[in-house]
Amino acid sequence: MKIEKLLSKDPLWISKALTTVERDPIAGKELIDSLPEREYHVIGVTGSPGAGKSTLVDRLATELSSDHSVAIIAIDPSSPFTGGAILGDRIRMRHALENDKIFVRSMASRGKVGGLSPAIYDAVKLLGKCGFEKIIVETVGAGQSETDIVNLADIVLLILAPGIGDEIQMLKAGIMEIGDIYVVNKMDVDGAASLVNKIKAMLAFSDRKKEVILTNAVSGKNVDKLCALVEKELSKLIETGLIHKKRAHRELFHKLNSICEIIQERFLEDEKLDTLLEFIKNFDRGEEA
Amino acid sequence: MKIEKLLSKDPLWISKALTTVERDPIAGKELIDSLPEREYHVIGVTGSPGAGKSTLVDRLATELSSDHSVAIIAIDPSSPFTGGAILGDRIRMRHALENDKIFVRSMASRGKVGGLSPAIYDAVKLLGKCGFEKIIVETVGAGQSETDIVNLADIVLLILAPGIGDEIQMLKAGIMEIGDIYVVNKMDVDGAASLVNKIKAMLAFSDRKKEVILTNAVSGKNVDKLCALVEKELSKLIETGLIHKKRAHRELFHKLNSICEIIQERFLEDEKLDTLLEFIKNFDRGEEA
Repeated sequence: MKIEKLLSKDPLWISKALTTVERDPIAGKELIDSLPEREYHVIGVTGSPGAGKSTLVDRLATELSSDHSVAIIAIDPSSPFTGGAILGDRIRMRHALENDKIFVRSMASRGKVGGLSPAIYDAVKLLGKCGFEKIIVETVGAGQSETDIVNLADIVLLILAPGIGDEIQMLKAGIMEIGDIYVVNKMDVDGAASLVNKIKAMLAFSDRKKEVILTNAVSGKNVDKLCALVEKELSKLIETGLIHKKRAHRELFHKLNSICEIIQERFLEDEKLDTLLEFIKNFDRGEEA
Repeated sequence: MKIEKLLSKDPLWISKALTTVERDPIAGKELIDSLPEREYHVIGVTGSPGAGKSTLVDRLATELSSDHSVAIIAIDPSSPFTGGAILGDRIRMRHALENDKIFVRSMASRGKVGGLSPAIYDAVKLLGKCGFEKIIVETVGAGQSETDIVNLADIVLLILAPGIGDEIQMLKAGIMEIGDIYVVNKMDVDGAASLVNKIKAMLAFSDRKKEVILTNAVSGKNVDKLCALVEKELSKLIETGLIHKKRAHRELFHKLNSICEIIQERFLEDEKLDTLLEFIKNFDRGEEA
């Protein structure tokens, strides 16, 4: 019964299942295991705060939804102290929220040791197994989760906009390197063409052949082209078989993040950490012997 | 001989020792263990990119150096892909660099799973044991290491400046909550007073009693007051005995970060992760039984 509701993508049941995934990882994993395998693709979206990410995700999801069922996970950075997420940007996703072919959910990134919360990996898997074909994961671009999106997503869209000028900071933080598609949003604002040139110069410098596209998320201009580009990049991954590698990579980092989270939750005592350290060191020695 | 050179704070030998800590953690830890215990305090500095952190750290270190020997670790975010750090902001530390009572070092933050690199914890310990009484750790404010500074430092200075306007992003990322002292730099720029009010409102809202101070790092205005405030806060920690708690906390997170780094370096294979997961789960069960 519950499984049927999930497989029919009943939003209420999906919501409940995601809450389980967030609050009770063990029950969440059992639920995920009870669902059949499906094909799905994960599109990561990250970039400058203020570049118009949410608006663009809204548009992109709407465009994709004409051929696919789409889910959006909007990651809000959570405070390491209160544990809660400050929501809010979701108002920019009005098209998606009104479209019943698109499921939208905010999640907290959590994690004191960093990395994306394992709950986010679980949520992606749940949504994929429920039948959402394209899952867009948007990080808010204010902290820890930018570069981790690479481990979760099949392709990453890096969204920039003229006039923000934080490319150097992003370059420093390694964020400029993670795009599979570079999107210069607010294309009608002064400096858009020059930003495109900067990105192209950077890509040439690091010898990476990636697409750069101009969009206007507010008017929707070029969003169809961006959508086609996303489909093209995904097709390439499928044709070359690289998609399997991406999936294995995702599974690996899912496990790694789960382990680090368990350690940080249950081992944060001197003695326990010592025991664990001993195990790790001996394990490695055993391997080499 | 080597130990003597280190204890006399010979900059060349200290530099070499830090390189060992960065490149060969095991040899680094042995070196640290061979040094006697010392009293030292760790001052974390973080905040907005462009708020003038490096200039202020330069001034603060100079001020502190009249009574103490001071070391600065400037953390540059490293690219998760190239592994290298992009340096550069160090030109803003000209006073400190010319002052032979102040030792300055840039380090990469590293760490794919996030958190501060264990090498940074090691470096702090090494410098402290070499006899530096005040160790300032500055994070560049462009990514993962902001909130982690809390685990490393005895007190945290959060540096903001008018006209940057990323308080909301910092609030979202939990960075606004981590200050023990709030510094509004560029005090002569329009909007400084209003920023102070915003910070005070936020502190009142979350019921935290923290000092807010205005500075001008370029002219050096109020840096003496900031320095006095830092000393006052440290004295409070010492008097209340809280400093021991901070130290234990630092040790714990040092260990935790080391473990997560080892796991991510040596266990990133399905089977190894499975074995580790099994150990962690059973360990926990054993505890409860």
